[in-house]
Amino acid sequence: MHILVTGAAGMIGRKLIERLVRDRALHGRAIDKLTLTDVVAPALPLGVSAAVDIVTQDLAAPGVAEKLVAGRPDVIFHIAGVVSAEAELDFDKGYRSNLDAMRALLEAVRHAGGNFHPKLVFTSSCAVFGGPFPDPIGDEFHLTPHTSYGTQKAICELLLADYTRRGFLDGVGLRLPAICVRPGKPNKAASGFFSSIIREPLAGHDALLPVDEKILHTHASPRAAVGFLIHAAGLSPEQLGPRINLTMPGVSCTVAEQIVALRRIAGDNVAARIRREPDPLVIRIVDGWPHRFDAARARALGFVAEQSFDEIIRIHIEDELGGVIS
Amino acid sequence: MHILVTGAAGMIGRKLIERLVRDRALHGRAIDKLTLTDVVAPALPLGVSAAVDIVTQDLAAPGVAEKLVAGRPDVIFHIAGVVSAEAELDFDKGYRSNLDAMRALLEAVRHAGGNFHPKLVFTSSCAVFGGPFPDPIGDEFHLTPHTSYGTQKAICELLLADYTRRGFLDGVGLRLPAICVRPGKPNKAASGFFSSIIREPLAGHDALLPVDEKILHTHASPRAAVGFLIHAAGLSPEQLGPRINLTMPGVSCTVAEQIVALRRIAGDNVAARIRREPDPLVIRIVDGWPHRFDAARARALGFVAEQSFDEIIRIHIEDELGGVIS
Repeated sequence: MHILVTGAAGMIGRKLIERLVRDRALHGRAIDKLTLTDVVAPALPLGVSAAVDIVTQDLAAPGVAEKLVAGRPDVIFHIAGVVSAEAELDFDKGYRSNLDAMRALLEAVRHAGGNFHPKLVFTSSCAVFGGPFPDPIGDEFHLTPHTSYGTQKAICELLLADYTRRGFLDGVGLRLPAICVRPGKPNKAASGFFSSIIREPLAGHDALLPVDEKILHTHASPRAAVGFLIHAAGLSPEQLGPRINLTMPGVSCTVAEQIVALRRIAGDNVAARIRREPDPLVIRIVDGWPHRFDAARARALGFVAEQSFDEIIRIHIEDELGGVIS
Repeated sequence: MHILVTGAAGMIGRKLIERLVRDRALHGRAIDKLTLTDVVAPALPLGVSAAVDIVTQDLAAPGVAEKLVAGRPDVIFHIAGVVSAEAELDFDKGYRSNLDAMRALLEAVRHAGGNFHPKLVFTSSCAVFGGPFPDPIGDEFHLTPHTSYGTQKAICELLLADYTRRGFLDGVGLRLPAICVRPGKPNKAASGFFSSIIREPLAGHDALLPVDEKILHTHASPRAAVGFLIHAAGLSPEQLGPRINLTMPGVSCTVAEQIVALRRIAGDNVAARIRREPDPLVIRIVDGWPHRFDAARARALGFVAEQSFDEIIRIHIEDELGGVIS
């Protein structure tokens, strides 16, 4: 089996590749080739048994999608894209990276010829939703994004469904919730604190909490997100039906519940490293985000998230800290 | 005031232009220029007082949108597009005419410079919805189109909302119900019978009814559709809020109720010109269409459709038959 991963240098891409390399197979079929692409060179984990082709190019650039598809991958994980803040700051870059790249990929598949009919797993986002919201947001709630990023993801979902319906490929789109605990350094994303209030105290550092502890949000671990992608690749068109874009499940909890879980797992001293410092801008942004999802269809189709925020913290300690709390 | 109409040679475009020429003004501002564009030459009604510029070109072709926008129209009615059956038969043409043309128009407006900020009224379609449906379909039901046409219209809605949110223009999208009674010759559209079972008997001809009389559908007259477009052009961004794409109201009735109305208005002899001839293909297609819409937001914003199917028939007799039944 040949697998193509776009956005291979990003956090989810890297973790997906690690999992594929460890498993050496996808749904019972051995992986004999991996094509990894991103705008920066993706790192390759140790112990790869499959042949690896690395393509460090912009998927939206002319000819790149055709070149990637010429290798006739059986499964495409299309994770590439620019994030929300960047798509909002640079209108043209957002549309090029998030929309034009998707269309280039879909067109390349359509024109590849010779009964080529890959599985395409696309990472969408809960940013496709825009308030006011019902609570929880059901599977049939309309998409009225409040960002260009959310707009681009929603358009990609529609394209993927149409190309699937027309028989050019088998698509499935996954609306990921907030990924938590995100590894790495604190960044300027408005959502960054959801991860940093856990990650930084566990690593012995202070963290800033810019919002009220009553704020409710839905989270899934990076490990769960990779699990969603793997599970999606194994779903048949019959299981999916025509509505191929799915809101993923997650753990819905308040910031206060996140902190209680941290204290339970790591103790008072670690939880005391969170400093309250309200930031009106972050408060306003976070207030406009969706809080909780029903995700009934995804659960019925076998997608599994964590059961509690405690579990999300334990996964971070296992996967990122070698089981050790500072 | 300068008004640009795309799709000016189509049925709705022609009727909109007739209305604008008759009114000589739009929401209290005199119309001093009309730019009319389509891929075939639009006819010009008699008695035009405004300056008229006719552009017979493909909006999706390079440079055409820029040329149209260079005249800095205050209001753009973007009605151009290929219909459902054609978009399904010719995948590339559908995406080019319905999606790429819209994007070209939006980009031309965005790049026109100099505080150019037109009103853009876009004709979407209830084909953005795909079953299974609730009854009625509410204003917050998701868009899962079952056709490429519906997909293209849904994508255009998302783009229009994002360009509006970003401040490049003031957009409003109108999901039109079935337009009935559609004037002209019978065509091969699966929906054609909804109009032809009224139009043909009133003109002294037989008509075929391919479906069961229990089929329920939602209709608005061509006059009402033009009214929607005019009304939309007068709505302020404050009235619309961020959800600028609206399902239009209409008259929901069964085919049996259509026929009862025809009999009431034109007599038994006219209604007897309808011949039942079930067509399994048409039955299957029509069965997948949305039946009834709530359209609460559009009604609250002042959009007005007919009150009964009788009224729809009377409008056809007035507007198309000079008040005379054959």
